[in-house]
Amino acid sequence: MNKVKSLNRKDLLGLKDLSLEEIKLILKTARSMKEVAARPIPKVPTLLGKHIITLFYEPSTRTRTSFNMAAKILSANITNIAVSSSSVVKGENLIDTIKNLEVMGVDSIIIRHAMAGAPHLAAANSRTAIINAGDGFNEHPTQGLLDIFTMQEKKGRLAGKKVIIVGDISHSRVARSNIWGLTKLGAKVVAVGPPTMIPKDIEEMEVRVSHELDREIPEADFIYMLRIQKERQERGLFPSIEEYSKLFGLNAERMKKAKKDAIVMHPGPINRGVEMTSEVADGPYNVILDQVTNGVAVRAALLFLLLGGKDGDN
Amino acid sequence: MNKVKSLNRKDLLGLKDLSLEEIKLILKTARSMKEVAARPIPKVPTLLGKHIITLFYEPSTRTRTSFNMAAKILSANITNIAVSSSSVVKGENLIDTIKNLEVMGVDSIIIRHAMAGAPHLAAANSRTAIINAGDGFNEHPTQGLLDIFTMQEKKGRLAGKKVIIVGDISHSRVARSNIWGLTKLGAKVVAVGPPTMIPKDIEEMEVRVSHELDREIPEADFIYMLRIQKERQERGLFPSIEEYSKLFGLNAERMKKAKKDAIVMHPGPINRGVEMTSEVADGPYNVILDQVTNGVAVRAALLFLLLGGKDGDN
Amino acid sequence: MNKVKSLNRKDLLGLKDLSLEEIKLILKTARSMKEVAARPIPKVPTLLGKHIITLFYEPSTRTRTSFNMAAKILSANITNIAVSSSSVVKGENLIDTIKNLEVMGVDSIIIRHAMAGAPHLAAANSRTAIINAGDGFNEHPTQGLLDIFTMQEKKGRLAGKKVIIVGDISHSRVARSNIWGLTKLGAKVVAVGPPTMIPKDIEEMEVRVSHELDREIPEADFIYMLRIQKERQERGLFPSIEEYSKLFGLNAERMKKAKKDAIVMHPGPINRGVEMTSEVADGPYNVILDQVTNGVAVRAALLFLLLGGKDGDN
Repeated sequence: MNKVKSLNRKDLLGLKDLSLEEIKLILKTARSMKEVAARPIPKVPTLLGKHIITLFYEPSTRTRTSFNMAAKILSANITNIAVSSSSVVKGENLIDTIKNLEVMGVDSIIIRHAMAGAPHLAAANSRTAIINAGDGFNEHPTQGLLDIFTMQEKKGRLAGKKVIIVGDISHSRVARSNIWGLTKLGAKVVAVGPPTMIPKDIEEMEVRVSHELDREIPEADFIYMLRIQKERQERGLFPSIEEYSKLFGLNAERMKKAKKDAIVMHPGPINRGVEMTSEVADGPYNVILDQVTNGVAVRAALLFLLLGGKDGDN
Repeated sequence: MNKVKSLNRKDLLGLKDLSLEEIKLILKTARSMKEVAARPIPKVPTLLGKHIITLFYEPSTRTRTSFNMAAKILSANITNIAVSSSSVVKGENLIDTIKNLEVMGVDSIIIRHAMAGAPHLAAANSRTAIINAGDGFNEHPTQGLLDIFTMQEKKGRLAGKKVIIVGDISHSRVARSNIWGLTKLGAKVVAVGPPTMIPKDIEEMEVRVSHELDREIPEADFIYMLRIQKERQERGLFPSIEEYSKLFGLNAERMKKAKKDAIVMHPGPINRGVEMTSEVADGPYNVILDQVTNGVAVRAALLFLLLGGKDGDN
Repeated sequence: MNKVKSLNRKDLLGLKDLSLEEIKLILKTARSMKEVAARPIPKVPTLLGKHIITLFYEPSTRTRTSFNMAAKILSANITNIAVSSSSVVKGENLIDTIKNLEVMGVDSIIIRHAMAGAPHLAAANSRTAIINAGDGFNEHPTQGLLDIFTMQEKKGRLAGKKVIIVGDISHSRVARSNIWGLTKLGAKVVAVGPPTMIPKDIEEMEVRVSHELDREIPEADFIYMLRIQKERQERGLFPSIEEYSKLFGLNAERMKKAKKDAIVMHPGPINRGVEMTSEVADGPYNVILDQVTNGVAVRAALLFLLLGGKDGDN
């Protein structure tokens, strides 16, 4: 692996507060990690003896498994703690839990929590490296980083590229992390969705808003489809799944209007027939499985930079 | 460990589609693995860096733990995913889950699912090695193999040996895997149970059917008692637990009719007083705990043959 | 690590049946383990290849995580089994489960169970090393040992020291383990609580009983506050949380009556505002986080002494 500088921070909480240099360092390190993960024996002793905890207050299979694989590639110890979503968890209890893990000798806690800001609260009250694996509607930075890594892998420099992010922007931590990161890299980001799904604070971000997918598709380099939470429909955010799909779903017909080399992305798991038809989900312009592959490399890079990259070497 | 040929297959889905040679190879490899497991430090680097997932859609303590120990003996990484049995899982979602794990770099997925054929669906849609840890009422091949391994260990060649399998054959994946394997090895298998518990497709298999346990016991070399699911009684498959035990349960009295060296087996956990009395469960002819011990060796052999045995050596 | 003698016992079930010499050996070994845990790479190959199971019939984050970290420091394999607390678990089933794990090759089972005596039942029916991680209202010996380790670390020899244990003694396995251990080391223990919370068998132990916290505080070297289970209030053990806190809770006012160098302890997690105010919980005389740190060292010492210390060396 090449010499890398370390991140000058204890935690990874969001893309909002990462500098352009830090994002580039993470992406570069992830390229090295992707090479390690592809070796016949994907195991290096870099983080031997380090203790990592996944502390998930919301269920997850994919993100948790991805972090487990990343940790094991680096020879770290990892222990998974699933906290019942039924027990209401107050801020104070979270801090006590974090402090307890810290004094046990834990080196990093990967936290997913329904409350926006929970990882920040944990980070401010602990010397342990906190990694945000999704906090409420705020951020999901490792997802944002793996998405950006995948975009770069497919199209090189992202400056000037048009990325449309389609769906329920208001309730999407994936959208927010992507927007913060992509705009720092100079991409032109358009948030596309019905007015009820565009957050009020969108003006803070350097993003254009659109309510018409058909108008945005022709010039898009990347079409990022967000997952729809069907439960939200009942609360009146959109009239019906059918209506939503007709206006904001991807199908083969609509893809004909796109650039020949446009890339389709999705954070998974896809609601087939809602965000996109199966034809599109399994189409050639789709890099959804690359995103998942790159997730392991990006997460390994972060663990390396936060826990082991002090001397710039592995 | 001696030179072994590898299995010429990607997956282990059932004993129905294994050849005689393949079964023999697995059993031979399991003998080596049993020796490894018995060492003072039972750890070899054979599968270092390999990623194994247990993906269980039905609860399990024993089978999951046995696979975990087998993986760790071979120095593989293993991550356990328990999928809530309450969430209905459709075929399409299963394929998406499997594909996601595959592209993360997972080398093998050990799957248990309430739907017969689920592992086959997974295997057909993935390049990852799929191991069936029980699918509906279809097969439980690692249980079948560990049972056959135990029978060979106790009595050598099984050709011509009489094995009676007693209980609810219709709803037993254990029975089906044993029948497919034992008949290939030349054993004479008799399915014993009330008519309501004998499956209609039994004629496909080279098995004799009997409804009278007392008539079958005297010449049996192996008496394999299946576990009774008490919940089924309510649905009218048999009149009462007492009635069932009287006709199809093992007790000391009934064992007097058996050969002196007859062997009693059970997949566990035993309903004491139903399938057999505690006297029989703890009797000298009982090899139930040997079955459990051999489970680790057989599972290690399969992981070795599917993931590491390409060059025929460890 | 210095030469240590091994424990001449298969299991760790409680402090009641440990000799003074055994307690001293465990504490001495824990000091070595604390040094190992503090190394830059806290990993030694001592228990390589050993299989450890946590079998928890009651939920736990802290104790389970602490054992996982201890096992990994010693390079042991560890697999966690959580048994649903909803399924009623009978003694017989527990023995079958333990025997199954034993014959799989498991070297140690760490068991937590709502039934007092469950680990003893397991130990009597298995050759595997059983470690009690809490059984009903009986004992929680690793908690008791880490508490005593922490007390020694802070004040050296405990003979003659006054320890007051405050709260619901009747329903506290933590209190019982501490009392058995501390009295063996010569400490003067006072059980403080309302009459409804003092167990009838307290006379068996060499403990003085008091119902007035304010009278006991001035001469106490250690003030050990037990956790209050709020659900018990509803069953009439005490009139109200407010009433309880007023009489038996620690606050800054009450701490003024204590010795300058008195130490406050709690097994965690604290109900802030009940057992003690946040001011006290975060005060300088409080060693609650030291207790948690020492838990990893004490548990590593026990795993080492039970599984690896046969030759007296690591």
